[in-house]
Amino acid sequence: MNNTLLEVVNPYDLKSIGEVKLVDWPTIDGWLNTATQLHRQRKNWLPAHQRIAILKKTAQLMQGQFDELAFQIANEGGKPLVDAKVEVTRAIDGVELCIKELGHLTGSEIPMDLTAAGAGRMAFTTREPIGPVVAVSAFNHPLNLIVHQVGPAVAAGCPVLVKPASATPLSCQAFVNLLYQAGLPEEWCRFAPCTSAVAEQMVTDPRVGFFSFIGSGAVGWHLKSKLAAGTRCALEHGGVAPVIVDESADVNAMIPALVKGGFYHSGQVCVSVQRIYVPEDMATSVAQAIADKASLLKVGNAIVTETECGPLVNPKEVDRVEQWVDEAARAGAQVLCGGHRLGETTYAPTVLLDPPAKAKVSTQEVFGPVVCVYGTESLEDAILRANSLPVAFQAAVFTQKLNAALRCVRELDATAVMVNDHTAFRVDWMPFGGRRHSGYGVGGIGHTLRDMTQEKMAVIKL
Amino acid sequence: MNNTLLEVVNPYDLKSIGEVKLVDWPTIDGWLNTATQLHRQRKNWLPAHQRIAILKKTAQLMQGQFDELAFQIANEGGKPLVDAKVEVTRAIDGVELCIKELGHLTGSEIPMDLTAAGAGRMAFTTREPIGPVVAVSAFNHPLNLIVHQVGPAVAAGCPVLVKPASATPLSCQAFVNLLYQAGLPEEWCRFAPCTSAVAEQMVTDPRVGFFSFIGSGAVGWHLKSKLAAGTRCALEHGGVAPVIVDESADVNAMIPALVKGGFYHSGQVCVSVQRIYVPEDMATSVAQAIADKASLLKVGNAIVTETECGPLVNPKEVDRVEQWVDEAARAGAQVLCGGHRLGETTYAPTVLLDPPAKAKVSTQEVFGPVVCVYGTESLEDAILRANSLPVAFQAAVFTQKLNAALRCVRELDATAVMVNDHTAFRVDWMPFGGRRHSGYGVGGIGHTLRDMTQEKMAVIKL
Amino acid sequence: MNNTLLEVVNPYDLKSIGEVKLVDWPTIDGWLNTATQLHRQRKNWLPAHQRIAILKKTAQLMQGQFDELAFQIANEGGKPLVDAKVEVTRAIDGVELCIKELGHLTGSEIPMDLTAAGAGRMAFTTREPIGPVVAVSAFNHPLNLIVHQVGPAVAAGCPVLVKPASATPLSCQAFVNLLYQAGLPEEWCRFAPCTSAVAEQMVTDPRVGFFSFIGSGAVGWHLKSKLAAGTRCALEHGGVAPVIVDESADVNAMIPALVKGGFYHSGQVCVSVQRIYVPEDMATSVAQAIADKASLLKVGNAIVTETECGPLVNPKEVDRVEQWVDEAARAGAQVLCGGHRLGETTYAPTVLLDPPAKAKVSTQEVFGPVVCVYGTESLEDAILRANSLPVAFQAAVFTQKLNAALRCVRELDATAVMVNDHTAFRVDWMPFGGRRHSGYGVGGIGHTLRDMTQEKMAVIKL
Amino acid sequence: MNNTLLEVVNPYDLKSIGEVKLVDWPTIDGWLNTATQLHRQRKNWLPAHQRIAILKKTAQLMQGQFDELAFQIANEGGKPLVDAKVEVTRAIDGVELCIKELGHLTGSEIPMDLTAAGAGRMAFTTREPIGPVVAVSAFNHPLNLIVHQVGPAVAAGCPVLVKPASATPLSCQAFVNLLYQAGLPEEWCRFAPCTSAVAEQMVTDPRVGFFSFIGSGAVGWHLKSKLAAGTRCALEHGGVAPVIVDESADVNAMIPALVKGGFYHSGQVCVSVQRIYVPEDMATSVAQAIADKASLLKVGNAIVTETECGPLVNPKEVDRVEQWVDEAARAGAQVLCGGHRLGETTYAPTVLLDPPAKAKVSTQEVFGPVVCVYGTESLEDAILRANSLPVAFQAAVFTQKLNAALRCVRELDATAVMVNDHTAFRVDWMPFGGRRHSGYGVGGIGHTLRDMTQEKMAVIKL
Repeated sequence: MNNTLLEVVNPYDLKSIGEVKLVDWPTIDGWLNTATQLHRQRKNWLPAHQRIAILKKTAQLMQGQFDELAFQIANEGGKPLVDAKVEVTRAIDGVELCIKELGHLTGSEIPMDLTAAGAGRMAFTTREPIGPVVAVSAFNHPLNLIVHQVGPAVAAGCPVLVKPASATPLSCQAFVNLLYQAGLPEEWCRFAPCTSAVAEQMVTDPRVGFFSFIGSGAVGWHLKSKLAAGTRCALEHGGVAPVIVDESADVNAMIPALVKGGFYHSGQVCVSVQRIYVPEDMATSVAQAIADKASLLKVGNAIVTETECGPLVNPKEVDRVEQWVDEAARAGAQVLCGGHRLGETTYAPTVLLDPPAKAKVSTQEVFGPVVCVYGTESLEDAILRANSLPVAFQAAVFTQKLNAALRCVRELDATAVMVNDHTAFRVDWMPFGGRRHSGYGVGGIGHTLRDMTQEKMAVIKL
Repeated sequence: MNNTLLEVVNPYDLKSIGEVKLVDWPTIDGWLNTATQLHRQRKNWLPAHQRIAILKKTAQLMQGQFDELAFQIANEGGKPLVDAKVEVTRAIDGVELCIKELGHLTGSEIPMDLTAAGAGRMAFTTREPIGPVVAVSAFNHPLNLIVHQVGPAVAAGCPVLVKPASATPLSCQAFVNLLYQAGLPEEWCRFAPCTSAVAEQMVTDPRVGFFSFIGSGAVGWHLKSKLAAGTRCALEHGGVAPVIVDESADVNAMIPALVKGGFYHSGQVCVSVQRIYVPEDMATSVAQAIADKASLLKVGNAIVTETECGPLVNPKEVDRVEQWVDEAARAGAQVLCGGHRLGETTYAPTVLLDPPAKAKVSTQEVFGPVVCVYGTESLEDAILRANSLPVAFQAAVFTQKLNAALRCVRELDATAVMVNDHTAFRVDWMPFGGRRHSGYGVGGIGHTLRDMTQEKMAVIKL
Repeated sequence: MNNTLLEVVNPYDLKSIGEVKLVDWPTIDGWLNTATQLHRQRKNWLPAHQRIAILKKTAQLMQGQFDELAFQIANEGGKPLVDAKVEVTRAIDGVELCIKELGHLTGSEIPMDLTAAGAGRMAFTTREPIGPVVAVSAFNHPLNLIVHQVGPAVAAGCPVLVKPASATPLSCQAFVNLLYQAGLPEEWCRFAPCTSAVAEQMVTDPRVGFFSFIGSGAVGWHLKSKLAAGTRCALEHGGVAPVIVDESADVNAMIPALVKGGFYHSGQVCVSVQRIYVPEDMATSVAQAIADKASLLKVGNAIVTETECGPLVNPKEVDRVEQWVDEAARAGAQVLCGGHRLGETTYAPTVLLDPPAKAKVSTQEVFGPVVCVYGTESLEDAILRANSLPVAFQAAVFTQKLNAALRCVRELDATAVMVNDHTAFRVDWMPFGGRRHSGYGVGGIGHTLRDMTQEKMAVIKL
Repeated sequence: MNNTLLEVVNPYDLKSIGEVKLVDWPTIDGWLNTATQLHRQRKNWLPAHQRIAILKKTAQLMQGQFDELAFQIANEGGKPLVDAKVEVTRAIDGVELCIKELGHLTGSEIPMDLTAAGAGRMAFTTREPIGPVVAVSAFNHPLNLIVHQVGPAVAAGCPVLVKPASATPLSCQAFVNLLYQAGLPEEWCRFAPCTSAVAEQMVTDPRVGFFSFIGSGAVGWHLKSKLAAGTRCALEHGGVAPVIVDESADVNAMIPALVKGGFYHSGQVCVSVQRIYVPEDMATSVAQAIADKASLLKVGNAIVTETECGPLVNPKEVDRVEQWVDEAARAGAQVLCGGHRLGETTYAPTVLLDPPAKAKVSTQEVFGPVVCVYGTESLEDAILRANSLPVAFQAAVFTQKLNAALRCVRELDATAVMVNDHTAFRVDWMPFGGRRHSGYGVGGIGHTLRDMTQEKMAVIKL
């Protein structure tokens, strides 16, 4: 027997809800061979209109299974049902977006006669698929992340092997099956749950044209350093997202946004609101207002309609969050709400006031329901502290002043600065991805589609 | 003493022509600190109009030292004077191109109300410098490559440390000095010749935002695997450039192009014509015609006006080329001209007919004055053989048929396919860079400028 | 009574198939007032996601009425059913294309600090709807042209009044009704069949922001000269499309393309193949081959499945074609097939060999089933003759030579040059529109969408 | 004798400073013939690198005659010397900008296989010169406007005939001569001062490919209605530029900007600050502060170094401004400074408080040194009044509030909204041109260059 089984559980009650076969290396080796052949022989390529038809059909099939897909996200991923439904909607939009972006993925004329050396020629570029894609995904958006990694590969005409997160393979499997059902030949997309060892072998294989990774920075940067010569990649990790509040901020409008941005999916989002910098004389009241709302959030099994915060992805994560909060509290942070686990798999929504700058909750990604509020001396001080970490992803500022808004937009070290919105805001066509340690390359459907193609120029002497 | 000296020689007669101080690690460490501070504090940034003024002035200064710069290229790099002059012209154009491209390096609006989730916001992006750049360069275009790596960094507003090739530091030093003379504060550009060990330490330092490398694939991919988390990079290596000739080709027009493309700078160019695939019944005559021209090329000291082919960069390279050609000849290749060294530092322009497919001259970059001609059975056969290596850079086809031209454009594995032109054709604004093992990222002034910036999005809730 | 009735007939048997009410000026005046109010008050604008939802729903509704829409096109427009079905497919694609293009209709950053004068500011642009649109349409694609004029207006957020061709109002009416059914409030799109006098009053009203016209050049240029100050416009007229054949052309592959391009919709297409320039020694045989195929085409009522060529839009058009062909024949043209009317409403597919250069069939748009073949002395001669008219729209060349193909691409006076394809080739996202007398502005969904918006820049001093 | 003479005077002292020969119709007729021949035969076209070299040389020559050019602008145009020097700098930058933009004026790939109908083809576009250009220019920037109209024509490869304003032909003549001196063959650019009747004949000639007009709306829209079929055009007229001030505005920073924007070149600028809307309780103090500064402005002969405001272009204009201000004063406007002529050719800088909404100074372009301040009830009221005219060009808002800034950016009917800057702000690469009655098409070097070219698509069947 070549395969062993991966058991999938509901992360709240830890009961088994399914299993998938792990794929072994010989199988993946064969798949990579096939993928390479498909790519190297242009006659094997699927024409764009066929890829478009498949994606269009896939979107329709997803719409037809909307409720099942949402339930599965909640069931295996612990994301509350209401948010799981939003994820399905976005995933369907994402598939359609692949089609839209494909129509704009074009080459351009390169003017040749700007110097005498180039005169008498005409030149233009086109874009071609970059080769076999290996995608390794994360658990927190089990369907939509797969769409963001696999959808562009299919649209671009790249054969793709996708390894889902171990916790959430079912949504990935479902999506791959819908692609098949929509007409995609199986050799163009392989569902490849596997062990870490096999995954590393797959990722670092020289046949891989492009490696797409969403997950922890430690794993991502390690794998990147092991890639074969010639393999391109994109990494999407997390941050420790900062929010700056100035004295003119509309506090009433701001609090719900911060609660949503900090506790959505129990903070298991790479751009979750984690550090909030508030002028000193407002810090306590802002923190308390957040805590008041946070303490009302209903924590429970994600498949129950009323649940607003689900479990963490596994009990070890609850242990870790528990340790980090305890460390911060011992070091002087005030715990305004939460600050303790609720059971084996859940942690109470927590607001910390003024944890030390060196504490883990101030420097590393919590990926749990913990929000920190810090008093600041000035806007300059707030920006300096917001920019003090090696990670840099989305950031935010709440203000009614033009100057403060633009200063934060300009000076925050971030890929996106939200003005009067929380850090976790995203639409799927915008550029999305971390700077510095937070990632490599730019995500978002259109950008990924571009990454998965390469430009070719033709220069014709007249 | 912290520094040791690097002696620079004329590669033809090996006589000393100058020396530069090697920079030690403590110095570079300090430079990286300063570079990081410059970048992290937006108030330190030079405004675009100031960078533009500096580059404009630099181009004028280069024009004023045109002959000295050309002589230095020939003297330290062994590139014939006539070609060295072309390089200076291109280098000046390159500096001006940095200015032109800067004006087009813009962000864009991101439409927000395409879905209800994004409605009520406006968003747009800008581009910011990516951080400290470390550039490691190659010897074959000692001035123009530096311009392609350092010019965009200056234009983008990135502090840059540049390590020239050990053989050709003088042109780099001259360019850096001209930048200073044009008004660039020294901390924005550092001339950093150093040992390989120090270079590796510099390149892999976590403060590096972007690493730009031009040189051998082995070194490049090795360094890439050692980069710190967060460092972005572009690599430009070489290829084994293929040319396809079909039976309709205009042979008279083609031969001079192939001789130029194969023996320019004694083949020390990353897109030098190396493999020529010709229909079997034409192969011998085409090869002979190339050999007839090649054997007339004047080989000598590059600083002598009449010289058409200079020395290789150092005697070891002559040894290597000698071994590769001997290997091919022993394995059955016909030597139509050349096939032997002319002295310690020069190798005779060589044309080989039908070397084996496995020979080094057929599979690895010769980077010397050696061109191989192969007989082929069909266009399909030629394309298959042209595409058979893990490297892929520029390629060419000579034909008068529309179908054959477009088939090669589409099916050759290359970043650029020249129709009726040699593979080494280039203008400096076109996309330029290797696929697969031949490089990482796309070069050309505008593309590099883009790589050295990063997008930032502002999303404003209305 | 304010309105009178417009009777609609099947153009083959001239039997009545429906009627629509003509709209009078007071009604249109009121509509223009409402449109102006909608546009001038930003709070009235429909958000993009709502416009997208309406267009998406419209496309679905069109799909649901596919057969009815196709039949109606055939019935009122005389376009054979098989081609009418293609038109419906394209019209549905066109509505979806409006959605796709809308997502890419964005502004951009304008860099400000390129000179000291602009430094210290940031600037970006967005696009806004241009104002009330008046569209006047043609009969030959009764559904798809309406989609190309009204779809972008709805997508762009412009209120639109549409006047269909008098012969084919039913398809237009159906489309407008589907928009309403999909949720578009009636004040955003008005179905406005009217007399020519009322149409001119509507078109030239100062409240009109954009005038979109498809139809005859004489009418279009006249109306353009009467537009109010401030009104923008696009005109799409016709041409006398030239095809150049060279001696290397693949004649077997070419003939069916030319027959399709010349006799599709009985030649009632603005880019219909009309003038074919063939080397003298091939001209007779090429012309005869076209005639052989053309004489087999089944002419009849468009609603009959077997029909390949339908009637002309009305009997006067048959009279006109009859006169033009007679004039040419009298002046020396050889009639290889057709050359006579088949009844009151149909004209036989006709091939003329060497009509005089001054004949109407050589200089004006036939808009009927007539194709002219001319013998030429050289490629240069052919290009000169192809370029000799004040109209210039799509052109074509048939050749297997790279040189001839590119020479025609470069030298033909045309907006598009097809290589080895007929002149009537079109996909709906490509730029499409006549040069010189053939039109004003560029059509195609995306281009029209852009035309119906205007850029606004914000410059913010920091 | 075919020509008569145009006398040029200094508009302050009305003394003669030169003369130019008026060109008659037969001469222009011949020039148009030549221009048409140049354009219709592609072999006559100048390659881009030659056009670039000419423009580069022209910029150098202008630099060499900097002071003469500035003096001439002041002398014939009445623009104070300090501002005339800025104009020369901008004009030189403009010529260089033509070169930069030309490098980015490219076509693009059009994807063909998005539907089955287009599959199996490749397509791309290029841009070609649109044909003979006729430019008619204005007096207020006698050199820079010519650069904006003629520079792009030369860059695009269009033959151009330029008619300067009657008052300021000398700067235009100088520029055309520098083009010749830089190597432009005379047939590519013709200096065409002529009578209005001849100008109209020239503009409306069917050989004209593109008509570029800068001047009064009445003349521009009239000429546009007379254009021959096929002629494209761009019109740049003026506006009645509104400024909105809200209660948070930084008044101290604002006043100098408003004085500059309102009295620069004595208000003879198409985007001159004319209407300032201020909250009622601040209106008098803001108006008085402007008046205090305005009354200090030194009015005199523009060639005198100290002069800050020169004469109007001719005495009739002073008469007109005198009548408009008198009308406003009689109708209730408070005259806070100025309000009277200073001599035959100059009018005193004038600030009016609360002129009636119907007065000419509130509804038509003053084009003189008159600024109006109005008290407003609310931001909404201010926007409504700012948007109330059929002209719409640049607008401005002064505020420190994010909301107010963005609301004005979104709701003002303008092509550009300046935040905390005056309405006359401009850099020459930004889009520039009026909406509605204020113009047709978008100006700015790059946009004009694009307008003067036309896209051509090649579609090649594979």
